[in-house]
Amino acid sequence: MANQFDPPSGTRDLLAADVEQREHAFGVVRAVFGRYGFEPLQTPAFERLDVLLGKYGEDGDKLIFKIMRRGEHEASGEADLALRYDMTVPLARVAAAYGSQLPSPYKRYAMGPVWRADRPGKGRYREFVQCDLDTLGSTSLLADAEALCAQHDALAELGVPGFSIQLNSRRVLSGLLEAFGVPEELGPGVLITLDKLDKLQPDEVVAELAGRGLAQDTAAELVATMTGPDAVDRIRTALKPSEQGSAGLDEVDGVLSLLGGQIPAGRIAFTPRLVRGLSYYTGPIWEVVARGVPGSIGSGGRYDHLIEQLGGPDTPATGSSLGIERILLLLPGSETADRGRLDVAVTVMSEEFAARSFGLAGAARAAGLRASVYLGSSGKLGRQLRWASDQGARWCLIYGSAEQEAGTVTVRDMRSGEQTAVAVGEVGSYLAQRD
Amino acid sequence: MANQFDPPSGTRDLLAADVEQREHAFGVVRAVFGRYGFEPLQTPAFERLDVLLGKYGEDGDKLIFKIMRRGEHEASGEADLALRYDMTVPLARVAAAYGSQLPSPYKRYAMGPVWRADRPGKGRYREFVQCDLDTLGSTSLLADAEALCAQHDALAELGVPGFSIQLNSRRVLSGLLEAFGVPEELGPGVLITLDKLDKLQPDEVVAELAGRGLAQDTAAELVATMTGPDAVDRIRTALKPSEQGSAGLDEVDGVLSLLGGQIPAGRIAFTPRLVRGLSYYTGPIWEVVARGVPGSIGSGGRYDHLIEQLGGPDTPATGSSLGIERILLLLPGSETADRGRLDVAVTVMSEEFAARSFGLAGAARAAGLRASVYLGSSGKLGRQLRWASDQGARWCLIYGSAEQEAGTVTVRDMRSGEQTAVAVGEVGSYLAQRD
Repeated sequence: MANQFDPPSGTRDLLAADVEQREHAFGVVRAVFGRYGFEPLQTPAFERLDVLLGKYGEDGDKLIFKIMRRGEHEASGEADLALRYDMTVPLARVAAAYGSQLPSPYKRYAMGPVWRADRPGKGRYREFVQCDLDTLGSTSLLADAEALCAQHDALAELGVPGFSIQLNSRRVLSGLLEAFGVPEELGPGVLITLDKLDKLQPDEVVAELAGRGLAQDTAAELVATMTGPDAVDRIRTALKPSEQGSAGLDEVDGVLSLLGGQIPAGRIAFTPRLVRGLSYYTGPIWEVVARGVPGSIGSGGRYDHLIEQLGGPDTPATGSSLGIERILLLLPGSETADRGRLDVAVTVMSEEFAARSFGLAGAARAAGLRASVYLGSSGKLGRQLRWASDQGARWCLIYGSAEQEAGTVTVRDMRSGEQTAVAVGEVGSYLAQRD
Repeated sequence: MANQFDPPSGTRDLLAADVEQREHAFGVVRAVFGRYGFEPLQTPAFERLDVLLGKYGEDGDKLIFKIMRRGEHEASGEADLALRYDMTVPLARVAAAYGSQLPSPYKRYAMGPVWRADRPGKGRYREFVQCDLDTLGSTSLLADAEALCAQHDALAELGVPGFSIQLNSRRVLSGLLEAFGVPEELGPGVLITLDKLDKLQPDEVVAELAGRGLAQDTAAELVATMTGPDAVDRIRTALKPSEQGSAGLDEVDGVLSLLGGQIPAGRIAFTPRLVRGLSYYTGPIWEVVARGVPGSIGSGGRYDHLIEQLGGPDTPATGSSLGIERILLLLPGSETADRGRLDVAVTVMSEEFAARSFGLAGAARAAGLRASVYLGSSGKLGRQLRWASDQGARWCLIYGSAEQEAGTVTVRDMRSGEQTAVAVGEVGSYLAQRD
């Protein structure tokens, strides 16, 4: 039941452990993308409404969060701005706005929240982070290979277990349709059905193809070619005579040969039945799947005309996108969960000793440790030690009358309970030498 | 003149150099705050409208970006959500929502964009980052000292030149009013006028105070006490007899003595005429000023009843806020401006050598360097070297027929132009050993 203090439907408050796990993962991805020479781009959270409307189809338009006009225009009940729905439309706008000021090719990544008014559900949010990598202005297969390889490296460095990459080309798909004489008008529907080969039985797929108007024997032959252990070889043979098919095979083999040394064998495979729903792809396409995770955790492909369709300049483009929210669920959270806690907790036995205690915490911080004084009102040591323990502190520094007389600090090892007297001026270096 | 491709009014596209400068600064601040045991909190970009409305006064309400209802409710022209306007109202909501699940005291920082529909101007944006640090649940002066000291350390580590901290207490101000017999109903106005002592001449301030209804001689005496070289001593003497004033002095001196060892002498001073406009402060207050920058670059104070007024639990609270957008303008940008560029640029002399070149870039990346292959279509070395130079690359790797025959790569030092033949398998370690 929603509580009046809950965040809005479909959004989350991220407390320390979540923020730290996420920031760590984002840092890994940024470092990998930077190593490939991709540079960051940050666009505003909102765009003018007309920049976004009509770019995501009718269903997409309904999911856009619109911002009302302000001041005297508020009464109109109209919107003039809208929250970012993805990273690609802003990229097209930036490409149009900055043109030749941008490097050519322009290799950028964008990592940040996007907002979609989808029905919230398990693991589906209205505010979620997208993590896109794109190269504008290169027709080279090397650009596709870079986008794919950088995505691969990010997943590998994040420690995502058991992932693999399915590679195909839009031209392979066109070639398949051509090779089997599929009438052009049936093409898109046939591809949508073929995309189900990993979920449905072959005869169910044949039936669905026939239902779409494909001749029964063509449908049966197509499905037979695409299933079973030797499917890839049979498809290669079938594609050879088709100009599109042959170009598609060259594209796939070209990418595979570029990646050869850098993606371990067996982690990437030509997967002719990979369709990718979106019709704007024009060259290589790929998806990343992970053991035990339905759907994909990443994807990408070449989309040479999309930037122009979205209002940008006419430029070739390729890129990849990480399903970072899904990936975060696959990563161990515990490892980083207490990074926000203290290394050193410092007691405050009475107001008289407050300045000294504050100074001791400062000395620990100067030694690079996370340190804080006790901020409560209890003067009881037991209570303050419990606080130190709750904070996960490795050390507790105790300073009271006895320590004042001796000119020392009692350093308590919170694991062993062992206590050592250390001269006040040497606490920082003492702690820095221990782990 | 606004262009159709510009970002919305009052917002910015941040290209690589800007993003990197900002992320670097945010990283420094996060590290400092973490060292004090503050933990991160991220709340959604938007809140339910009723959570925000009425919290920022009538003028503030007008500056809230409201989000329209969606689906069948869109036609109503009503809003149900609104973009975050500050970090404090979401903090109050989180404190109410999570209660005892949060550590006590709850020390958190929040760093992220907020949105205000202010009239955009030079250095004034509608989307800007706020950087807040707060402790809920402690009445200890140590909590105020921590908030102030953490803010100081962040500014120092960012390298902000010539900043200093003005410290006061709301009780000092109440004591002043009491000591000079200012009628209670004139108090708030008198404080607003006294806040102008650093901009106006003393007699102008006296006149303004008289205009507010304060007796002319009281006004003159008050201003005389508060100006001139011995003002602080005279104010201390004047405050002693007042209970509020005396408590305020204790508070100021208490904070100063806690900070003694950690903030260099001369960088913080008791500044009795510091008012801080906001009426919700209840204890110590401070502002950070920097040479040559009008206004403040940071501020803070204790606000023991605000969280409750904002819809949260009744809890004591203190905190500080960095004017991070202003601070970024004070920092050298150039130092970090080309961190996004390449260390190693790899030529692609023909398609035949593409896989080898891509592999060489991979070897450089594996050695921790930023590396990319040439993605253009020119096979001319001169053109590719120009690209390498444009990328700011330290090294260019050249691989063509001659290198293939010799089994080597030509490593060109882009500073000196010197070229060295290195065995293909050793390029990574060769580069890693150089700077």
